[in-house]
Amino acid sequence: MAKQISDLKLGILGGGQLGRMLIQEAINYNLTTLILDPDNEAPCKHIANYFECGSITDFDTVYNFGKKADIITIEIEKVNIEALEQLEKEGKHVYPQSRVIRLIQDKGVQKQFFKENDIPTAPFQLVNSQEDMLNSSIPFPYILKQRKDGYDGKGVMKINNAADVENAFEGPCLIEELVDFEKEIAVIVARNPNGDVKTFPMVEMEFNAEANLVEFLISPSTYPEAIQERAEVIAKNIASSLNITGLLAVEMFITRDGNILVNELAPRPHNSGHHTIEGNYVSQFEQHLRAIFNLPLGDTRAINNAVMINLLGEKNHNGVAKYHGLEKIMAIDGVYVHLYGKKYTKPFRKMGHITVVDQNRESAIEKANYIKNTLKVIS
Amino acid sequence: MAKQISDLKLGILGGGQLGRMLIQEAINYNLTTLILDPDNEAPCKHIANYFECGSITDFDTVYNFGKKADIITIEIEKVNIEALEQLEKEGKHVYPQSRVIRLIQDKGVQKQFFKENDIPTAPFQLVNSQEDMLNSSIPFPYILKQRKDGYDGKGVMKINNAADVENAFEGPCLIEELVDFEKEIAVIVARNPNGDVKTFPMVEMEFNAEANLVEFLISPSTYPEAIQERAEVIAKNIASSLNITGLLAVEMFITRDGNILVNELAPRPHNSGHHTIEGNYVSQFEQHLRAIFNLPLGDTRAINNAVMINLLGEKNHNGVAKYHGLEKIMAIDGVYVHLYGKKYTKPFRKMGHITVVDQNRESAIEKANYIKNTLKVIS
Repeated sequence: MAKQISDLKLGILGGGQLGRMLIQEAINYNLTTLILDPDNEAPCKHIANYFECGSITDFDTVYNFGKKADIITIEIEKVNIEALEQLEKEGKHVYPQSRVIRLIQDKGVQKQFFKENDIPTAPFQLVNSQEDMLNSSIPFPYILKQRKDGYDGKGVMKINNAADVENAFEGPCLIEELVDFEKEIAVIVARNPNGDVKTFPMVEMEFNAEANLVEFLISPSTYPEAIQERAEVIAKNIASSLNITGLLAVEMFITRDGNILVNELAPRPHNSGHHTIEGNYVSQFEQHLRAIFNLPLGDTRAINNAVMINLLGEKNHNGVAKYHGLEKIMAIDGVYVHLYGKKYTKPFRKMGHITVVDQNRESAIEKANYIKNTLKVIS
Repeated sequence: MAKQISDLKLGILGGGQLGRMLIQEAINYNLTTLILDPDNEAPCKHIANYFECGSITDFDTVYNFGKKADIITIEIEKVNIEALEQLEKEGKHVYPQSRVIRLIQDKGVQKQFFKENDIPTAPFQLVNSQEDMLNSSIPFPYILKQRKDGYDGKGVMKINNAADVENAFEGPCLIEELVDFEKEIAVIVARNPNGDVKTFPMVEMEFNAEANLVEFLISPSTYPEAIQERAEVIAKNIASSLNITGLLAVEMFITRDGNILVNELAPRPHNSGHHTIEGNYVSQFEQHLRAIFNLPLGDTRAINNAVMINLLGEKNHNGVAKYHGLEKIMAIDGVYVHLYGKKYTKPFRKMGHITVVDQNRESAIEKANYIKNTLKVIS
């Protein structure tokens, strides 16, 4: 009999909430999990079979860690790619593949990939200096993005005029035409080495403008079938063009004139899929495991209406986290609490999420609004 | 602000699959979990915050372990009660309470409790010797049960005639009239210290005759509403009479003449509630946490039809477990795998369970039958 998932060791680079929710699913398959994270109090620490405190961007640390595993995956893109390439050369399975992470790590290369593969995206230009920015053909206002290391809204700013350019990021960036969008949406797609591809139903997101973070997510969408299908086809095409193994989250805009533009990619479980734990037959985390272990992909259909609320640290609160209002929201039917095991809160830190499941969409949204106003992470 | 669930330490006596599934839910609440189990490779070992290998029946071991926790619970009844009593005296919360565990630990005392509280149950008699058995007023054939330490069908035998008595168990037992039942059912009820009580919908069970273990469980039941309500009222009455804090599983018989008789109790998460993880809005494990931390009880309604199949070790297989057919059953929609992290299989050992969720009851049962015939735990 061939090696089974229960005989294998999964190495995960990064031990934050995404790794934590991945391990929660991995437990059901007797999978042995190994975590590498620079924070000795990372959310995964106590639930992994093996936890190593170390840098995920250092060649030797990542390489030596990877040698201990059978399959290596990531929960964050900012990892040492050269070590992953070396591990691949030595026969380890790295999913997503190092070349996919390398491509997605650099938002400039990502945008060029969209262009080369006829994937609809906002016009852009790569820039290296404030001079490039001032001389660009893209009109003000535009969006400036650092090509690397952006995360959770960091590394993105709006440039309104020439004066803003002086306070702009330094180094390799891209500038992008401001999209007049009606809605931000996302589709998560999974692909296994057999080439099976499945998408989760399209979801709608609402952002916290101040933090530039997803605050609310609604599943499934009520956009017309034709638009949902178009978004799902785009996601599938990207997964196939990339030949990715694993999950790929595709964030998109629906413009006011009804077009879909791809914003950016994440080759891993993603905030836009947290609702799938209770809202869909298979969760994004289990689907990622199924994909990287080359198992049949699960049923992605929605079971119920689901609204996901990110639980962000309150402004002006720094210190040991308290969850004010938790008991109140637990009294509501169909409410699922997911705290991420982070001891300390700080403004806008992702401390957990809440999913509301309800057969009635309006009622789910109403409950979510109540939760947003009631549950506060304070110190 | 008062102490919150995320500030507290939960000590669990026993580190098997029930503890494992309890921890899987506890992770979502940042709860710190401590496990005491005599097996150094217990299913909970790698997912608890703290694991101690030690006896759960030894006074000092249990007492010293309990001192480290804020709330103490169990996943098996065979624990040292005196240590729990001492911990209660010193102000620790032990849920279920030591007096409830003491009562349920002894099936003789349990039956007397039923009698005293007008809870319908089969006629019985306590016996201490083969002589008592032969002189009993209960006619052959009857059921003989050891009063203590029975588990998973062990400690129960059918006595057909006087000849069988010679091979019967020794020591304190009870004998019970053979019930001519149509169906075995169960209702799980939860009660918190506030006195809130909620039942899960009644489920139907099918047993493996050879192993005397639940093999199949179907939720929700299709018995008439009136019978389901009666079963739920019985469960609530028992929980209230016991003044229990936590979960209580009530196993019952529906007799051929339409009566309900209580078979036995378990004051903890139970095999008859595993389907609730995916099949109901709240799972039995989360409900137990809500109850023992005095939080609002969750919504117990069924979301979908669910069939649970226990995954028992195949006969004649002893050794490192292999899950033959796993990939095949994962290709079916609505199938959830729960392996218990046990390295070694042996005949009839509970190695995991599978839940099938389907909007169509017949289809769920059909899938469950296919799974039962396809998935085998071998060595």
